[in-house]
Amino acid sequence: MTLFGTQKVRENGHFEIGGCDAVELARRFGTPLYVLDEQFIRQRMREYLSSFQSRYPAVKIAFAGKAFLTLAMARIVDQEGLYLDVASDGELFTALQAGFPAERIVMHGNNKSPGELGMALEAGVGRIVVDNSLEIERLIQLSEQKGVTPSVLVRTAPGIDPKTHRRIRTGQEDTKFGLNIRDGSAMKAVQRCVDSQRLRFMGIHCHVGSQLMDAESHQQASDIMCAFMRELQDATGARVEELDMGGGLGISYVQAQSPLSVDDYSEQVVNAVRESLDRYNLEPPVLGQEPGRSIVGQAGVTLYEVGAIKEVPIPEAPGTRTYVNIDGGMSDNPRPQLYDAVYEAFIANRADHARDTVVRIAGKHCETDILIQQTSIQRPQPGDILAVQATGAYNYAMASNYNRLRRPAVVLVEAGQADEIVRRESLEDLISHDLIPERLRSRAPASA
Amino acid sequence: MTLFGTQKVRENGHFEIGGCDAVELARRFGTPLYVLDEQFIRQRMREYLSSFQSRYPAVKIAFAGKAFLTLAMARIVDQEGLYLDVASDGELFTALQAGFPAERIVMHGNNKSPGELGMALEAGVGRIVVDNSLEIERLIQLSEQKGVTPSVLVRTAPGIDPKTHRRIRTGQEDTKFGLNIRDGSAMKAVQRCVDSQRLRFMGIHCHVGSQLMDAESHQQASDIMCAFMRELQDATGARVEELDMGGGLGISYVQAQSPLSVDDYSEQVVNAVRESLDRYNLEPPVLGQEPGRSIVGQAGVTLYEVGAIKEVPIPEAPGTRTYVNIDGGMSDNPRPQLYDAVYEAFIANRADHARDTVVRIAGKHCETDILIQQTSIQRPQPGDILAVQATGAYNYAMASNYNRLRRPAVVLVEAGQADEIVRRESLEDLISHDLIPERLRSRAPASA
Repeated sequence: MTLFGTQKVRENGHFEIGGCDAVELARRFGTPLYVLDEQFIRQRMREYLSSFQSRYPAVKIAFAGKAFLTLAMARIVDQEGLYLDVASDGELFTALQAGFPAERIVMHGNNKSPGELGMALEAGVGRIVVDNSLEIERLIQLSEQKGVTPSVLVRTAPGIDPKTHRRIRTGQEDTKFGLNIRDGSAMKAVQRCVDSQRLRFMGIHCHVGSQLMDAESHQQASDIMCAFMRELQDATGARVEELDMGGGLGISYVQAQSPLSVDDYSEQVVNAVRESLDRYNLEPPVLGQEPGRSIVGQAGVTLYEVGAIKEVPIPEAPGTRTYVNIDGGMSDNPRPQLYDAVYEAFIANRADHARDTVVRIAGKHCETDILIQQTSIQRPQPGDILAVQATGAYNYAMASNYNRLRRPAVVLVEAGQADEIVRRESLEDLISHDLIPERLRSRAPASA
Repeated sequence: MTLFGTQKVRENGHFEIGGCDAVELARRFGTPLYVLDEQFIRQRMREYLSSFQSRYPAVKIAFAGKAFLTLAMARIVDQEGLYLDVASDGELFTALQAGFPAERIVMHGNNKSPGELGMALEAGVGRIVVDNSLEIERLIQLSEQKGVTPSVLVRTAPGIDPKTHRRIRTGQEDTKFGLNIRDGSAMKAVQRCVDSQRLRFMGIHCHVGSQLMDAESHQQASDIMCAFMRELQDATGARVEELDMGGGLGISYVQAQSPLSVDDYSEQVVNAVRESLDRYNLEPPVLGQEPGRSIVGQAGVTLYEVGAIKEVPIPEAPGTRTYVNIDGGMSDNPRPQLYDAVYEAFIANRADHARDTVVRIAGKHCETDILIQQTSIQRPQPGDILAVQATGAYNYAMASNYNRLRRPAVVLVEAGQADEIVRRESLEDLISHDLIPERLRSRAPASA
């Protein structure tokens, strides 16, 4: 059983996180419950900052809000001095409402609406990462209207095919993201930004993919990005002040996965960038990084209550399978369904017992909805609290109300203190946007 | 271009649904927008009723709420005289708040909580479909406490492996759902219900899977269920008054798919059930059916606004791919990501033009997020309204706020009238459950 951050097993066998008894948390806040380890999040942020800053003169670390963003999370990002990536009006709104300084916000998106661009300009976000030529024209026009000169990075598609799930590859050429380098689209976009009186061209951006175990794709991307930097500086006379290499470092959801540590990753990325800069005879620009999952993923645990347990006959050995049904499922964690994602779990109220029972963890939704295909946990009983590890990223962020389940609360734990940072939804919340047209109020249809 | 229900193309080339101009709807209610064709829904419900009633003496058609359930939808189900399947406290709450008669509600779920069972008992729902032995014991205990005698069906796992996506197969033996027939679990459960003074045993239930193109699995299930009926009646002396064969009839999302019509499906199911009843010398029980997708799926269209359009180099012929970016994506329709689901689309403001452009439709989320891998549409331009067909089921129901996008409005259209039945979320809604603990309000961390 791997324990992350402040996690430990108490003498009474209960699982502890952030100094809090997880079984108590489940009782106090109900289940399913997302629990986030504040100290772990801060440590990871500081690790990113120090790893990169110790190896490179000028670094910008931006937290990728898509992984997990609420008002409280934005406050932590602010307090730790990181930048913040947002990718929609909703993420930008959340950041601004949390008092996050606009100059440290980076606005992303492959299809920003004029409304979103306008909102970013009015807020005065520090960087807009322009993705396509329509956006550049819209941005120039809006900036003229508003009399502002936003600082932009040009998002490129470097043409790298990383080893990860096909749904989260983004750096290849055949992608909706960014401007292709090889066919000249990226150069044309840079030229347009440079020529424009209304955009301040600051540099270039790429993002090769997510949940990467090594820095190989980043190393490949370094060379391509620096070659393009050389070319564009020669062609346009502009200077690339920032080189944003995106995010993508993975985490271990299960023991079999072993991604690079943040420190090793930073060493490999910085070395690759330095070598590429030398190769193309370039001054070091500010180096940008955009971690999300690797900061918040392992900080999270989801607590469920165990319900019905079933022994079901199967053709394979040992002849039966144990289904452990929990009170959540794909509405609070769609990743197993979306990406065949794997997770580890244990019984939080008997965390000191041996994990000697092979089970399948099933959600409560009206379809197959398997959270974990096969894992070993302590012998389960109805009423037990099941903890699923490494659910801090892309769980709450992707949660739905499928089957009209209420989305769980999120609790931030730190030194024995537990604070709700997202309130659990109520039954009333589920119908709060529902309306009944007058003609449907009668018992019989008007047209019957 | 296939047109469903009331859909047509107007003389001005605009797409029409429910007598409303879809381009006008997009303007009035914004995009993305779910549009539902009320007449189509009602016709499908009546088709189910008449097809089955004309062939079988006693029929119960229940709409499977998991496909799409809001207050307004519950009203339509009520007006049409159907029963209603619910699978959570949230779905039950929605039905009750809509004034849906409790006696026509069927309560499902593989892991009903004591709270959900209590709520179902207090409401007096017509049927509880018990799924496992823990639930039966909990239900007996709760019924004793409340002094009620609920009517129950026993959900069985008949051991049928239907031809459909692995995520929505439910009838096989290796499943979280129901009580296994072959290993005696189902018989034991029936016996327990029959023996109990607190449960009124009414019959048996199965559900083999979803999005099925033929009735083959239902035919197989008929034999197994009737054999079990014979066996349990002989063993327990109880009478099966209801045989619920679940739902599962698929729809055509694209032209290449050709499921049975409701009429043909009903004929094949009824014939199979009749033959099986004869084979095992059984009186015809009430026959239950639980359609969801086949009622509401093709009634829905999602309208998006086209944004950036990109020509991207690819290795395959013709050497480039056209990415059409829209203002929604996997947050409003996760089915392509979850089930490799396929869809057809067209330009609603030029629906009369030839669909001569092969494109990929990309969502606006920060990952691959492809809504349609490849399809032919009218030559697209930014600002066009893209209509995606057959999104009435499992779209709004599964929608999320991923990337903090606001969930779209749902509009019900009928004879030229358009009524919002779900209000679009606001930016304020996105943070309405967010809380900031006091220690996070300062600029610097307390622990720094």
